[in-house]
Amino acid sequence: MPRRGRTVPYGEAHARQLSPNSGRQLERLAALSDGIFAVAMTLLVLGLSVRASSALHPPRPLWVPGAVGSERAVWEVLRRLAPHLLTYLMSFLTLGIFWVGQQTQLSQFRRSDRDLTWIHLVFLLGVSLMPFSTMLLADYLTYRLAIAVYWLNIVLLGGLLYVSVRYARRARLIKEDVTAEMTAASERRIIVYQALYAFGGLLSVISTYLSIGFIIVVQLNAAIAPRFWRLDRF
Amino acid sequence: MPRRGRTVPYGEAHARQLSPNSGRQLERLAALSDGIFAVAMTLLVLGLSVRASSALHPPRPLWVPGAVGSERAVWEVLRRLAPHLLTYLMSFLTLGIFWVGQQTQLSQFRRSDRDLTWIHLVFLLGVSLMPFSTMLLADYLTYRLAIAVYWLNIVLLGGLLYVSVRYARRARLIKEDVTAEMTAASERRIIVYQALYAFGGLLSVISTYLSIGFIIVVQLNAAIAPRFWRLDRF
Amino acid sequence: MPRRGRTVPYGEAHARQLSPNSGRQLERLAALSDGIFAVAMTLLVLGLSVRASSALHPPRPLWVPGAVGSERAVWEVLRRLAPHLLTYLMSFLTLGIFWVGQQTQLSQFRRSDRDLTWIHLVFLLGVSLMPFSTMLLADYLTYRLAIAVYWLNIVLLGGLLYVSVRYARRARLIKEDVTAEMTAASERRIIVYQALYAFGGLLSVISTYLSIGFIIVVQLNAAIAPRFWRLDRF
Amino acid sequence: MPRRGRTVPYGEAHARQLSPNSGRQLERLAALSDGIFAVAMTLLVLGLSVRASSALHPPRPLWVPGAVGSERAVWEVLRRLAPHLLTYLMSFLTLGIFWVGQQTQLSQFRRSDRDLTWIHLVFLLGVSLMPFSTMLLADYLTYRLAIAVYWLNIVLLGGLLYVSVRYARRARLIKEDVTAEMTAASERRIIVYQALYAFGGLLSVISTYLSIGFIIVVQLNAAIAPRFWRLDRF
Repeated sequence: MPRRGRTVPYGEAHARQLSPNSGRQLERLAALSDGIFAVAMTLLVLGLSVRASSALHPPRPLWVPGAVGSERAVWEVLRRLAPHLLTYLMSFLTLGIFWVGQQTQLSQFRRSDRDLTWIHLVFLLGVSLMPFSTMLLADYLTYRLAIAVYWLNIVLLGGLLYVSVRYARRARLIKEDVTAEMTAASERRIIVYQALYAFGGLLSVISTYLSIGFIIVVQLNAAIAPRFWRLDRF
Repeated sequence: MPRRGRTVPYGEAHARQLSPNSGRQLERLAALSDGIFAVAMTLLVLGLSVRASSALHPPRPLWVPGAVGSERAVWEVLRRLAPHLLTYLMSFLTLGIFWVGQQTQLSQFRRSDRDLTWIHLVFLLGVSLMPFSTMLLADYLTYRLAIAVYWLNIVLLGGLLYVSVRYARRARLIKEDVTAEMTAASERRIIVYQALYAFGGLLSVISTYLSIGFIIVVQLNAAIAPRFWRLDRF
Repeated sequence: MPRRGRTVPYGEAHARQLSPNSGRQLERLAALSDGIFAVAMTLLVLGLSVRASSALHPPRPLWVPGAVGSERAVWEVLRRLAPHLLTYLMSFLTLGIFWVGQQTQLSQFRRSDRDLTWIHLVFLLGVSLMPFSTMLLADYLTYRLAIAVYWLNIVLLGGLLYVSVRYARRARLIKEDVTAEMTAASERRIIVYQALYAFGGLLSVISTYLSIGFIIVVQLNAAIAPRFWRLDRF
Repeated sequence: MPRRGRTVPYGEAHARQLSPNSGRQLERLAALSDGIFAVAMTLLVLGLSVRASSALHPPRPLWVPGAVGSERAVWEVLRRLAPHLLTYLMSFLTLGIFWVGQQTQLSQFRRSDRDLTWIHLVFLLGVSLMPFSTMLLADYLTYRLAIAVYWLNIVLLGGLLYVSVRYARRARLIKEDVTAEMTAASERRIIVYQALYAFGGLLSVISTYLSIGFIIVVQLNAAIAPRFWRLDRF
């Protein structure tokens, strides 16, 4: 039973034989994804902790917990961390949205193949870059280039989910009960989102704060908005 | 059994067809949760290691393992880390309790929907903030504001579990063999716990040590106590 | 269907109803364990990286990758890291052994209950402490106290696996096809191991290197030895 | 189908009874692997973040996000990080390839035994060492010794996958529908790859950049090339 081309998706008999493995492949891809999302989401806040501890109170003696001091010292730490908290929340939201998006896609696939796996591995590379983009943005909140890097990261994530849907459709890796209409809607949604993110990125010409504010509003809408279009649903 | 949610997007037949996916959604939510809890729990101690290595013996030559020195140097490191160890243990306990609580909830859900997923994503945001709150508290053990931040983190976690149960009940996402009585007991328990935590937080007006001690006792009770009320059980 | 005592393991009918949840509980405990082991194992080497980068070549200009320099600089880094590599390998081995041990136990349980879950959560606390103990030992390789802390960490891990087997046996949480003989053998093995570890720890009175060497030999035997007694097998 | 392994501990009947456990053993090995790969892949970029934040703009005041400054400052950060980004991408590719390779192997195993588990634990040790090798290479991009360490890491990974296939074949742990021809092809592929990596490593005699370039080309081919030989497929 030699395997032929790349997209010839096996005969019936073969399919039945391979289906446990193939399903397992999807499962492990999902497991790796969950792991990378989990680490990336938690590393976001690690950046925060590192900032909090190393940059803000280096000269404080660690081993004198009972030292006399005013409550204002802690306020000061929190106030200085505020821009970091803001970008942290935005990135958690971003990762949450893309996790839901990828999860929805994976649940619609019948099985994976080598190319689809690699599309998702590159997607995961984008996920693992997010803590870096976030830290860069937090440190350079008023710089358009930092916004641009962050936005490119989002484009990478959205672009790969788009490529993934299209590839899966052409290679017939999508479950039979998922209609063409559903995948088309899914693709449309990614494009609308990306257009909004691009607009948000362009707003940085006026002000980077405006840019960040717009992106957060778009994301809150994606996560919370009652019945507006959604990336993660049909 | 049509879904009464906000968008009612599927017919009866479709619903039955999609139920494996829905179960899968819960599974992946559980997997992401386990990942984030695992990373957060291990990062707690990373904070400890960073403290141990960077703050406490910077001038020691790393590459002279055979250097002559007194055992007291190591005692000194451990003694200075004591407050960090205390908060570390408390936070591990906290995360353990909330992991058990969330796990119990997830096991009672029939399936998830978009809103429930986002409630739990925000819950996970709270989990990922825990290493930060812990490090802040360990560094500012005698400051009421550090206690307040830590307590707010616990409120966020407990509050979202409460919202999650209530939402799931209203949206009929709970399994049929879980009685209304059981969910009501679950909600009641969260409220009792949160009241105790709030009282613990208020104790910081007298002394932050008293506050921390009280919270630890509450948590030990939750984890070990033989048959007192419990967050994690029915 | 009110639940009564702690160890009364439900009636037949109830058991059938709850078994999917209970199995799921074990699954999620396994998932959390895998996550914590994975993070702890990788953090071991992070400590190594941090050492490599921060302590060893701080004054080197990062952004001049083409800088002229002798290969000896890299040798120097590696030579200085040698004691860290040694403890790193030992700890990876330790965690590997306990991962296999815990995994074997979990696969023998029929289901979990609240107390068993907490026994394993405390076990995981011990796992998450391992990177800390390792870093302490690597930094203070010739200090008996560092060995003592490391050994206490191993005692914690072994002790909890022992408590776990005994508790599970008494609470009848073990699968029916696992004979009493098998669990007794399992308990015996943990005790033999712990005795060997204790002996290894005591050897530090003579020399900490002797102590570490002995522990590594015990562990290599546990992992590789052809048919000597084993922690992870029946 | 009695097991011919080293200890032959179970009778026929027992073996059938234990098979679900054995499958579970493979599952947990896969879960641990996914976790370690996920953490290692995300730690790669953490190294990047740490570099970005600590080494590059230490004197910049963190808490003045609105500070006046030129966009060139961010360009400078990115330009200086370029060699790190390069090695980061290469290592992500490496880990992706080996993840796919290991995943394919695990999906072909019927069950695991103690020795196979340890072979994969040592494989995972190699995975967890990758962030260290990567950081060393990024810091010493023009040093042959850094390339050598990186290459040894790849040899460790490839070598263990090879040992794993061979051992599994001899110990009859491979599923029945996986033909001898398929495993032989798998072994051949690993050898071809390793030969290419070795050649790439040797190129460092001429230039380390040439070496890295060659390795990246080999990996891109492995991940993307349409129908050339592949490590991860049959």
